[in-house]
Amino acid sequence: MSKVNIARGMRDLLPAKMIQRQQVISKIQNIFESFGFLPLETPAVERIETLMGKYGEEGGKLIFKILARGEAGTKGKCDLALRYDLTVPLARVVAMNPGLMLPFKRYQIQPVWRADRPQKGRFREFYQCDVDVVGSENYLAEAECLAIVHQSLDVLGFEHFKIKLNDRRLLTAMIQQIGAQEQETDVLISIDKLDKIGEKGVRAELKDVRGLDDSAIEQLFQMLSGEHSISGMEEIEEGLSQIRKCAILLGVAPERIVLDRKLARGLDYYTGPVFETVLTDANIGSVSGGGRYDGLIGMFSGRDVPAVGVSLGLERLLVIMEERGMFDEQAGSTHVFVTVFSSDLLDDSLAVAQKLRSAGIKVTFSLKSNKLAKQIKAAHRQNIKHVIVVGPDDVAAGVVQWKNLSTSTQRAVSIDELCSLLKN
Amino acid sequence: MSKVNIARGMRDLLPAKMIQRQQVISKIQNIFESFGFLPLETPAVERIETLMGKYGEEGGKLIFKILARGEAGTKGKCDLALRYDLTVPLARVVAMNPGLMLPFKRYQIQPVWRADRPQKGRFREFYQCDVDVVGSENYLAEAECLAIVHQSLDVLGFEHFKIKLNDRRLLTAMIQQIGAQEQETDVLISIDKLDKIGEKGVRAELKDVRGLDDSAIEQLFQMLSGEHSISGMEEIEEGLSQIRKCAILLGVAPERIVLDRKLARGLDYYTGPVFETVLTDANIGSVSGGGRYDGLIGMFSGRDVPAVGVSLGLERLLVIMEERGMFDEQAGSTHVFVTVFSSDLLDDSLAVAQKLRSAGIKVTFSLKSNKLAKQIKAAHRQNIKHVIVVGPDDVAAGVVQWKNLSTSTQRAVSIDELCSLLKN
Repeated sequence: MSKVNIARGMRDLLPAKMIQRQQVISKIQNIFESFGFLPLETPAVERIETLMGKYGEEGGKLIFKILARGEAGTKGKCDLALRYDLTVPLARVVAMNPGLMLPFKRYQIQPVWRADRPQKGRFREFYQCDVDVVGSENYLAEAECLAIVHQSLDVLGFEHFKIKLNDRRLLTAMIQQIGAQEQETDVLISIDKLDKIGEKGVRAELKDVRGLDDSAIEQLFQMLSGEHSISGMEEIEEGLSQIRKCAILLGVAPERIVLDRKLARGLDYYTGPVFETVLTDANIGSVSGGGRYDGLIGMFSGRDVPAVGVSLGLERLLVIMEERGMFDEQAGSTHVFVTVFSSDLLDDSLAVAQKLRSAGIKVTFSLKSNKLAKQIKAAHRQNIKHVIVVGPDDVAAGVVQWKNLSTSTQRAVSIDELCSLLKN
Repeated sequence: MSKVNIARGMRDLLPAKMIQRQQVISKIQNIFESFGFLPLETPAVERIETLMGKYGEEGGKLIFKILARGEAGTKGKCDLALRYDLTVPLARVVAMNPGLMLPFKRYQIQPVWRADRPQKGRFREFYQCDVDVVGSENYLAEAECLAIVHQSLDVLGFEHFKIKLNDRRLLTAMIQQIGAQEQETDVLISIDKLDKIGEKGVRAELKDVRGLDDSAIEQLFQMLSGEHSISGMEEIEEGLSQIRKCAILLGVAPERIVLDRKLARGLDYYTGPVFETVLTDANIGSVSGGGRYDGLIGMFSGRDVPAVGVSLGLERLLVIMEERGMFDEQAGSTHVFVTVFSSDLLDDSLAVAQKLRSAGIKVTFSLKSNKLAKQIKAAHRQNIKHVIVVGPDDVAAGVVQWKNLSTSTQRAVSIDELCSLLKN
């Protein structure tokens, strides 16, 4: 016997988890498609030069590299790498398909791989779940992103969440107006820590580490809180109001969408509106984030291609839904267990199973012709609630025995009746 | 502008292809689940020692190897590799989950990676689509595999196909009975060529290359054709008849399932019944294959674990379906394109789009507020048949204009009426 193990930081998704995941992905996919987004898949493997240099120094270290085949491989050369996110592949697809009709509205739900230090609940393979509108500057695209997040969380059963909305250019302007433009990045990093270290912590950092004076810090916080306006930014603020208004027309509950000048969304590649969603009754960080990034998609094509997108934190949502028992029970699972009464009645049981399947019912058939009680126990252990027994008297009478294990009841029904009962 | 390309032998699945693929996978998945099979996913990445030595010398060369992170990587060490098939990962899962309830009926639809020489229609990343019953010796499991193949092809719209059924042990017995047991493998390889080089070619090879005498070859072909019985194999032949009978009870059309003593299914790892499906009206090789392999699943666990499974050739089926135009039109695509009549009527159009979406209709919204004719052209280019216009008179009258681009008709309807019209 060889000792065997799964790769470090990876996981298997056994049926119980897979059924939950399929349920969630299917609901999200329906929302994406209801907004006219179409599916895209790109290969797990990209050329190494497509990925290197796109994720910063830290990110680059986390890319899984694939050894070249043949001669070059023996020298340790790597020519391929595993997909690190879904955005760089999208940029590649746009560059390689100049005939693509714009705006291109695509969704993509695929795993990505990162050689992060494995820790509880974080894996080296995880799903990303992105929608992006490529090739439109229209702020309706932002509104659609917000509505998609809202409707997705809503359809999954989340009630308490807030979508924060800001514009990267407001932050730039605020920093400029306090005369700190030369340290924009550093000041942004500090502002981005508000959730973690609070206002007091950020004020201290701005003073002690960044060297800002008290009045600049005071002015900054008055603008961040919205007490003071940011001069020259009226048009951008009006744009945010328009996005918010349209998102509401697209079904977003008004109380769930808030303008928040403090939202920085990291430093990344955003160039305009940014958004982030937090569950107000869970301490898990953001469950969705996105924004406009007009510089990135064109990186391979040399064209300027405006783009806006949003990503749903599928893995985090699954963790919370699991904790709270938010999955639809039984959906995706097997509905019925058909037993074998005795070997001479095998054919009758098979015929019953087949009729149920034809009616769209998910049926597992007993593969052990042991005692009936043991077969029923097997159904029980698989959490299948409905058990069918076809005994000699039943065959003669044209019925089957329908046992409901959750109510511990049993009755004789015709197959047609059973089909319609089980479909409800 | 940096030059960019996709990795060699890989492909992007753009929306039109993805919609077809999703449609096919969803139908197959429904059939799998109707037989009580449950979903499993394993990581793309396995430890290199889990995969090496499992696919023969040739297979081993085709495995994509991943460079170790850190120190070892700088020396060219590879510790991980990309999944090569779905069977070895299944064996690993079974070994690592000793509490798994048996029989374990799982399906798995995931990509695998092989560094094959790329050629037309063959890719280095492709989907496999497997069902396996682990932990049962019952021949009903074989019958379920056959019924699953049959129902899958049927639901996809295939009419002309044959499922061939044989038992590996019959071939062994035939070879033994002509006294050629010492060259069993070589003789099997020759028999496996019947489709390619015909009976005459195989007879010549058996004589000239394998050195069998004329009477042995004659005897072999009489057994292969079924003219002569194979002594001592009555029980196994009876088993095949039982499998066939049960498969028919499970919905397989009798004329589509044939016993064929010539079916060898390569040499692989099969230990009992084997099966293969060919489209009788296409020259594309087998579109499904499988059988019982009682030795493989236990390889990591040291237990003897009987198993039987079947694999659908998803990529081949997609090629044929594409050639023959067998996809459901429009399924998965966007149904409706909502235009913007003028900027002051934007809100009205948004509200209409939102109502349609709430009714489960897939709606794309015009992101360009240009001339109506141009917006309609955009819908046309995206193959969206239904276009909605909301003009000032329509708003006043509580209706919308519904244009059907395929029939070139237009009429005013209420939104409720539109919803029910479009849902049919």
